[in-house]
Amino acid sequence: MTYRAPLADIGFALRYAADLPAAIDEGLFSDLTMDDVDAVLAEAGRFAGEVIAPLNRVGDQFGTPFKDGAVTTPPGWKEAYNGWSNGGWNGLAAPAEWGGQALPQIVNSACIEMWHGASIGFSDGPMLTVGAIDALHAHGSEALKRAFLPKMVSGEWTGTMQLTEPQAGSDVGALRTRAERAADGSYRLKGQKIFITYGEHDLTDNIIHLVLARLPDAPPGTRGISLFLVPKFLLNPDGSLGARNDIRAHSVEHKLGIHGSPTCTMILGDRDGAVGYLVGEENAGMACMFTMMNRARLAVGLQGVGVAEAATQQAIAYARERKQGRTAGMKATESASIITHPDVRRMLLSMRALTGAARAICYATAIALDRSERSKGEAARKAGHERGSLLTPVAKAFSTDVGIEVTSLNVQVHGGMGFIEETGAAQLYRDARIAAIYEGTNGIQAIDLVTRKLPLSGGATVATHIKELRGIVEAVKASNDPAFGATAVRLEETVASLARATEWMLGRSDKEADAALAGATPYLRLYGLASGGCLLAQQALAALRLGNEAAPRAALARFFAENVAVQAGGLERTIIEGAPGSLGAEAALA
Amino acid sequence: MTYRAPLADIGFALRYAADLPAAIDEGLFSDLTMDDVDAVLAEAGRFAGEVIAPLNRVGDQFGTPFKDGAVTTPPGWKEAYNGWSNGGWNGLAAPAEWGGQALPQIVNSACIEMWHGASIGFSDGPMLTVGAIDALHAHGSEALKRAFLPKMVSGEWTGTMQLTEPQAGSDVGALRTRAERAADGSYRLKGQKIFITYGEHDLTDNIIHLVLARLPDAPPGTRGISLFLVPKFLLNPDGSLGARNDIRAHSVEHKLGIHGSPTCTMILGDRDGAVGYLVGEENAGMACMFTMMNRARLAVGLQGVGVAEAATQQAIAYARERKQGRTAGMKATESASIITHPDVRRMLLSMRALTGAARAICYATAIALDRSERSKGEAARKAGHERGSLLTPVAKAFSTDVGIEVTSLNVQVHGGMGFIEETGAAQLYRDARIAAIYEGTNGIQAIDLVTRKLPLSGGATVATHIKELRGIVEAVKASNDPAFGATAVRLEETVASLARATEWMLGRSDKEADAALAGATPYLRLYGLASGGCLLAQQALAALRLGNEAAPRAALARFFAENVAVQAGGLERTIIEGAPGSLGAEAALA
Repeated sequence: MTYRAPLADIGFALRYAADLPAAIDEGLFSDLTMDDVDAVLAEAGRFAGEVIAPLNRVGDQFGTPFKDGAVTTPPGWKEAYNGWSNGGWNGLAAPAEWGGQALPQIVNSACIEMWHGASIGFSDGPMLTVGAIDALHAHGSEALKRAFLPKMVSGEWTGTMQLTEPQAGSDVGALRTRAERAADGSYRLKGQKIFITYGEHDLTDNIIHLVLARLPDAPPGTRGISLFLVPKFLLNPDGSLGARNDIRAHSVEHKLGIHGSPTCTMILGDRDGAVGYLVGEENAGMACMFTMMNRARLAVGLQGVGVAEAATQQAIAYARERKQGRTAGMKATESASIITHPDVRRMLLSMRALTGAARAICYATAIALDRSERSKGEAARKAGHERGSLLTPVAKAFSTDVGIEVTSLNVQVHGGMGFIEETGAAQLYRDARIAAIYEGTNGIQAIDLVTRKLPLSGGATVATHIKELRGIVEAVKASNDPAFGATAVRLEETVASLARATEWMLGRSDKEADAALAGATPYLRLYGLASGGCLLAQQALAALRLGNEAAPRAALARFFAENVAVQAGGLERTIIEGAPGSLGAEAALA
Repeated sequence: MTYRAPLADIGFALRYAADLPAAIDEGLFSDLTMDDVDAVLAEAGRFAGEVIAPLNRVGDQFGTPFKDGAVTTPPGWKEAYNGWSNGGWNGLAAPAEWGGQALPQIVNSACIEMWHGASIGFSDGPMLTVGAIDALHAHGSEALKRAFLPKMVSGEWTGTMQLTEPQAGSDVGALRTRAERAADGSYRLKGQKIFITYGEHDLTDNIIHLVLARLPDAPPGTRGISLFLVPKFLLNPDGSLGARNDIRAHSVEHKLGIHGSPTCTMILGDRDGAVGYLVGEENAGMACMFTMMNRARLAVGLQGVGVAEAATQQAIAYARERKQGRTAGMKATESASIITHPDVRRMLLSMRALTGAARAICYATAIALDRSERSKGEAARKAGHERGSLLTPVAKAFSTDVGIEVTSLNVQVHGGMGFIEETGAAQLYRDARIAAIYEGTNGIQAIDLVTRKLPLSGGATVATHIKELRGIVEAVKASNDPAFGATAVRLEETVASLARATEWMLGRSDKEADAALAGATPYLRLYGLASGGCLLAQQALAALRLGNEAAPRAALARFFAENVAVQAGGLERTIIEGAPGSLGAEAALA
């Protein structure tokens, strides 16, 4: 089966996990209504399911052949991309002044989930265009914006983000690509970039590269990095395409997954140097990079949600159809759908619950980003900004870990068929794996959460969030609904573990920084379990209140609390007590 | 880097996790000495590292082209296979009367780990030959044994195990391949088998298929299954190869991993029916199948250990060599090996600890199988048999889950490079995935553990084992060695969780069977954590006693106890309290 956009779950999560209606009621999105939102999502879901999803396996098999510096995208991709950008999807949340539709980030996030649910390989490129638009919009000069933004917003041109070099991966500050000042105020870049997603392709007639490089007199490390816009084709004064710039793809990687997404090694300055235009100030490239990456990190989290959703749908459909074995009382000649077997059911529920939790966290992050931009009043915008900053690493890392776990369970539910490429489960498993790596590995996300996000506003930002989670637990308790089983107790324990682990993390001095870092990944996981579990419960409360979809949502929240969130105690122990045995274990790695 | 056999770890685990010297001292293996064992292992390690390992990537890339019914194995594989079988490795643990070396199963297990550490794709075929030898030796007539066993033991001919059909996977009883009695006492088989490992290949000039089929008058289900030996080429009276039998490969699968291992769809009886010879009694094929599968299940567990070891070695080597970022006090222009970063170290320690735990469990299973065959006295043999039966599903499922987790961490440690196929980390990740599926999915293993193994001897078998684990905990406590940190406390809690969960499982009546099944997989995981953690601690105790490799082994045991085994409490909760929320959640899967 191919992916079908889960519009009911998405709509419910927008309303009751992220409370989009409240933001609409506050007037944050002018005259937008939930009906508008539903209409947009329905159309996006149709496009994702009908146009993009059928191309996913094509891309996996065809790959991205590379010859004479040119990449051929898989059959049908160009037509689909044109249909997609003509549909206005690229600029959905982009500023109206540059031709975007200025819809909420959260609505775009729901769409991003669907694009990636249909095909990560296809949707990888547009995701990076959005990052490039963000950076250019936030930091570029008016002239640069005027020249490039309209066609990037429309999708007529795509964008790339070029950070990584062989010696500079997680350590961006180690990059060596050089930019020299030219007489005309532009720059000439020379260097090599690797792992550049959609660095070269044939979908559009220009590609706008955003490249981090170092000026000759730049200080070492991250304080000496600048951001440049380097178009594949330079523009003539009338805006038409001019000369080919001195940047080219040197090779395309052979990867575990996302075969349809060309991952390029780029050479800048083979001849006289690639012409680049400074974005922002000299040596202030890191700030620009974070602008590019922040929304991209949420988008990668949504890849995790999308691929997990696709895998869950496939597993449930297969488990209904596949007959093996018997349940109690069946004759030896009969056989039961494997969905009735408790062990298979546990796998399917884990898949659906983890996917739902990750979705809720991503949407909660997205609405915070909307509030950071649109809330009335500085304080509310700051609160939105800090909540978004806090949740972004969780959204990215928890969701992409979930993508890997859920796609692995999908393989397992399929048994031997899952290992056969034609089934498609293997592709989802392969494709999902990248999302835990790029846009900052999940380890980097955990370190970001612990070292930069927990200290926001002196710890008040995280404290406020944990207080909110406690409020949800209290509401579950107060509901007293038997459908919840032990949900309230289990979530209360989970949030208490998170609170204690947070306090411990905040209490680490600089001297004990390594102890905090040793527990960063389990801490992020704990954060995901607590917030994801509470947001599932919050949706279940809404469903019970509305008498709408109550049974499935309560069952899912309960399953998560009783069967998944119960890992919290072990994680807390690892975080608070595990560091000495980890940091001191050098001998075991000899 | 390529795989190097971890001879020190293997030798230590044989001695101090499985206590092979005690079995030798008891005279179970005639005049075998530990020096002999070490010599065998050193030679196996050399062959695995020098001959097999370099072929692993060749196999991944070349695959197993299929044309006109014939499979071409990858370049170099035939020479390597000949060298391997000529070295006597195929018959290492096979009976001396058929040309085997009759070495202990545990020594063969250590070798099997090394073969698979070097290449699962290559070693997959021999693994199944051993299963076929076991079944034939245990159940075949003297005439059949005489005709086929010598060449199967020498490796001159390989064997297959043919169970699966499209409608009969985990549910073996649903198979439909028919066997009709022929006038000469043989049978004629017609049907189709799928997922047959090394069902066709060019390594040897005959292939001995062991095929499950159903007689025309057989009762339905598993009570109506018989086992047949179906050679690819029939034998002339003098034992030379005669006519081509009516069994052939119809196609070869395109798989996620183990590309060098041909997975075939087999057609039996296209013409007059494939000639088959009954192994054991009519309608008693299930017992024969379990003979075939039991040792194969342990061997698959060892695949998990081997591939996890290979991934751990690769990750540690890369983490030493790769420089990114800085540790406290380094200049901005310097960079540190990533092994010094606490988050990377946590990953590497998890890999090594999980691998070591899985290895110890597999070896403990192997020595139990040896004792089941060779102990003096019926009671000791029965105890060995039941211990081996109890641990086999844990060895298979825990170790193969570990294989997946550890190969995934290897990808993660490599960052972007991990996603590039040339690095090799992706192949290990792809190859490892099958082991959780074949020879009984890990879900089937968990069900086997809970429904068939816990009740052995009225629960006394598992009780004895848990008592042993408690003894190890007490010894750690008594050692009072500061290198253990909180190991004793954490393991005590883990074993207590296992004891309570076991009691709960044994207390489920038939009416509550589904509740037990719902918790079977978390229960098996808990079993793996408790026994693996204790066996690592037991090895650390020995190392401290000997003053030999004490620091690394104590550090590893401590890391496992404090950072991994702490998941036990959450698992216990899922097992004992999670079932209602799982079994009753049908609505969430609608």
